Amino acid sequence: MKIARVEHRGRIFHGVIDGEVIRALRRDPFSGEGGYRDPEELVDEGSCVNRAEVRLLPPCVPGKYIGIGVNYRETARMMGMAIPDEPLVFVRPTSCIVATGEDIVLPPGAEVVSEGELAVVIGRRGRHVDEEEAGELIFGYTLTNDLMSVTRYHLDGGNPTLAKGYDSFAPLGPHIVTDRLEEGCELATWLNGEQVQGGHSSDMIFSIRRCISHVSRFMTLMPGDIIATGCPPVPVRVSAGDRIEVRADGLGPLVNRVVAAPDGIDETRI
Amino acid sequence: MKIARVEHRGRIFHGVIDGEVIRALRRDPFSGEGGYRDPEELVDEGSCVNRAEVRLLPPCVPGKYIGIGVNYRETARMMGMAIPDEPLVFVRPTSCIVATGEDIVLPPGAEVVSEGELAVVIGRRGRHVDEEEAGELIFGYTLTNDLMSVTRYHLDGGNPTLAKGYDSFAPLGPHIVTDRLEEGCELATWLNGEQVQGGHSSDMIFSIRRCISHVSRFMTLMPGDIIATGCPPVPVRVSAGDRIEVRADGLGPLVNRVVAAPDGIDETRI
Repeated sequence: MKIARVEHRGRIFHGVIDGEVIRALRRDPFSGEGGYRDPEELVDEGSCVNRAEVRLLPPCVPGKYIGIGVNYRETARMMGMAIPDEPLVFVRPTSCIVATGEDIVLPPGAEVVSEGELAVVIGRRGRHVDEEEAGELIFGYTLTNDLMSVTRYHLDGGNPTLAKGYDSFAPLGPHIVTDRLEEGCELATWLNGEQVQGGHSSDMIFSIRRCISHVSRFMTLMPGDIIATGCPPVPVRVSAGDRIEVRADGLGPLVNRVVAAPDGIDETRI
Repeated sequence: MKIARVEHRGRIFHGVIDGEVIRALRRDPFSGEGGYRDPEELVDEGSCVNRAEVRLLPPCVPGKYIGIGVNYRETARMMGMAIPDEPLVFVRPTSCIVATGEDIVLPPGAEVVSEGELAVVIGRRGRHVDEEEAGELIFGYTLTNDLMSVTRYHLDGGNPTLAKGYDSFAPLGPHIVTDRLEEGCELATWLNGEQVQGGHSSDMIFSIRRCISHVSRFMTLMPGDIIATGCPPVPVRVSAGDRIEVRADGLGPLVNRVVAAPDGIDETRI
């Protein structure tokens, strides 16, 4: 099942994508006590809208956007980085999130890299879950683009908080698939029509369940939270004017244009 | 004016603290378009409750909890750290936040330090604001305790994401004061009845306005967001059974007990 969050004539709601139609849900599937697993039961049969008439929004409004760094062996190898002993976790301010079709705004003077990634959408509250239980927390999957200013990263001595914290640096969407991905999926990123990045989710160093379990050792995961699962080889530099497209089996495309800040401050200065 | 967020007989609302009475607000003062500055206009005169009958909750539900590291000269000196060239920014998952009176849960085997801090509560949306405009974004002030597992900080090579990311590691409250703090305020932290930390907000390396301006260069600040402004000398180690109290002029006390995790996993292992 494909779940989107849309704006239609000023009204914002979640819905099930069914061909050219979106069947509205009676409420946010993440707002139920303890999370919710079956959006089908929430469908308001009397409320269908044309897909062509809606604007896609980020498919959920996460309380937390968590990222896992260096989670593909080949990415680590190509970037000359060691294979980590446990998942490398970072947290993004959710103000980074934009929808498919929105612009990625480059800070003036900054070298920025793009990483197309598979993102897990959490459906149930969980803390200290083990890997076996971790699957129970999964609502579905979506795509994200994990952007970073390499310039700021080096200025901050390797602290990714601000380097990844810019507005628009986390496109998310276009929708969520609730199907199980037991066999994993192929993932690819295209820059101006050319494939620049790709891999299979089964090549992750730490599996999705391991990442969920690890994060839950520290913090309570809540319905709607996002975990971005890392970038297959290899991060690619982007410039103003570029068009980035992330796709996976049954998911996507997450499409964003890169633009220069209209009247920016030079973020490379201290 | 003192603004609290409370639970009273199952209902959660914001209110103005007026002696022994809390005058309920008709709505969340942070939910208005573009933020709101005058809670007095939101008071529902027909709805007063007894202060003794409510449970204090964190005084707002921030979309972002941003922290500034090493922001007092004396703290930097005593910890042997260089004076930073610009504010050191970290972001916490908001799942860290607990109210006054709630427990701080220690991960087993971890050395944890406490830092009582003044926190700014954002009242208006802002991006790329300069220091002169930054004051316009301030809704008021509250207190926070910025806890960190030093053990996890070292395991993660100085990345504070998980070290500061544990559930309960950001007590916030007990209420917000909306008065201007043009002259700054005295701030003190007490551990089991003994003052262990203290300073004056005017001793910050980067002023509150500078911190707001700096963060807004990267990300949009939204009503209800929190910026923790750094710890006067000096962070103090805490253990299970401790009682920590943070106070400032007209603010506080933010009181939390430290407890051991009931059935924790050893967070020091990889």
